[in-house]
Amino acid sequence: MKVTLIGTGKVAQSLAHALHSQQLLYGVHGRDILQTKRILQDLPGAKTLDNLDFAKNPSTVYLLAVSDRAIEIVAQQFDWPQAAIVAHTSGTTDLAALDSCPRGGVFYPLQSFAQDSKIDWAQTPLLIEGGDSATEETLLQLAQQLSSKAQQADRETRQLLHVAAVFASNFTNRMLYAAGEILSESKLDLQVLESLVSQSVRNVFIHGPQEALTGPAQRDDQSTIQHHLKLLAQNPSLQLLYQRLTDYIEYSKPQKR
Amino acid sequence: MKVTLIGTGKVAQSLAHALHSQQLLYGVHGRDILQTKRILQDLPGAKTLDNLDFAKNPSTVYLLAVSDRAIEIVAQQFDWPQAAIVAHTSGTTDLAALDSCPRGGVFYPLQSFAQDSKIDWAQTPLLIEGGDSATEETLLQLAQQLSSKAQQADRETRQLLHVAAVFASNFTNRMLYAAGEILSESKLDLQVLESLVSQSVRNVFIHGPQEALTGPAQRDDQSTIQHHLKLLAQNPSLQLLYQRLTDYIEYSKPQKR
Repeated sequence: MKVTLIGTGKVAQSLAHALHSQQLLYGVHGRDILQTKRILQDLPGAKTLDNLDFAKNPSTVYLLAVSDRAIEIVAQQFDWPQAAIVAHTSGTTDLAALDSCPRGGVFYPLQSFAQDSKIDWAQTPLLIEGGDSATEETLLQLAQQLSSKAQQADRETRQLLHVAAVFASNFTNRMLYAAGEILSESKLDLQVLESLVSQSVRNVFIHGPQEALTGPAQRDDQSTIQHHLKLLAQNPSLQLLYQRLTDYIEYSKPQKR
Repeated sequence: MKVTLIGTGKVAQSLAHALHSQQLLYGVHGRDILQTKRILQDLPGAKTLDNLDFAKNPSTVYLLAVSDRAIEIVAQQFDWPQAAIVAHTSGTTDLAALDSCPRGGVFYPLQSFAQDSKIDWAQTPLLIEGGDSATEETLLQLAQQLSSKAQQADRETRQLLHVAAVFASNFTNRMLYAAGEILSESKLDLQVLESLVSQSVRNVFIHGPQEALTGPAQRDDQSTIQHHLKLLAQNPSLQLLYQRLTDYIEYSKPQKR
């Protein structure tokens, strides 16, 4: 199976390397030809595709790793081969965005792509949907070549997962940002928390979040909570968050539900 | 240097093993003698101390690994040797809680102690304060035998750090709890997010939280945000959190500050 990749952003770059390492990458098309060539420098054998006519492109699958908003428009720009499977990589966009393509699908890597970060694709869940069962089967086969965690996921599941991922990734990031903001008033920096954070995240996946939870709200230690709120008085935004999240811990205690 | 440990909870258990592995542990005193003996099973050579009279105890340092509320009361129960250094392990309790002891100090491990979790003590920050400089020096020496991340931290620093740790550990835990709550409506469970979460936490400590942030709020993708809020309509508590945290991302964008 050969795969053509469309896009040159962080997801596309990481995906290009993953596909190339499995000898699956036929070529890459990007809006910015210089950026495309830069990506292909490390990927001997893969082609720079600067034409929108893919009639003679031998790929089975075309992965659209572009921003959510661009998917529908970009998909309409190409002349696709007759049986082309075109899949986008978005957790939140409907299959309908690919209605202009011969066969549409979703190839959603549940992962956080920072600039230059090394992704462990073998451990990255790949959530697959196809407009028909043959398309889904082909995309699933491709996904299984990249990851041990490839599985079918319908629209509803993927959309719930995308909201869950916002909490698990973006909002977790904001908790660490908040910690850094608090520490900016001290002589310490965020790095001092690395061991704690790694351990508490590990604890969640070993013991489950409820069992792994520690801290004043969990112990119902009101004097520490009040003390913390006082310490945050100079930063109303963080004080409000502290209060809301403490309420949420209270609300989510097993005996109270 | 010999160390006596007072307490049998999760912190005490982990600390007992760390001290024992460095041949520092003289003995353990616990309220519950059976629990104390259970801990000492794995620690050949360390003594079960069931007496409150420590006049003949040869330890230099006594670590009080008990709950914050118990520190002051427990400290008053013992007959300490004349030059005993008694240090508590709390991030939030004042040195004054140890006024009844000959020499007081703080020995605060910045770590999350879940039941049975293996702690990497060498990477765990140990934040030290002494009532006088000789006490501080001795506690710092002890801390350096356990960890490469031992350092002095005064009361103000420790208290800021403790609030920061609540955000970084307890509230991060709650973000993952929330993700699990959302996924409970799907066929997937929280484990599917493990790779994403590990990677996004790593990204924070490599690139800094602002650089590592991804997601709809970061991209100012209002249509995804509105869609997510609609998906959370059945759970007002999570919907409110989503809104507040999205506001916080907006508020903390560099150009807006």
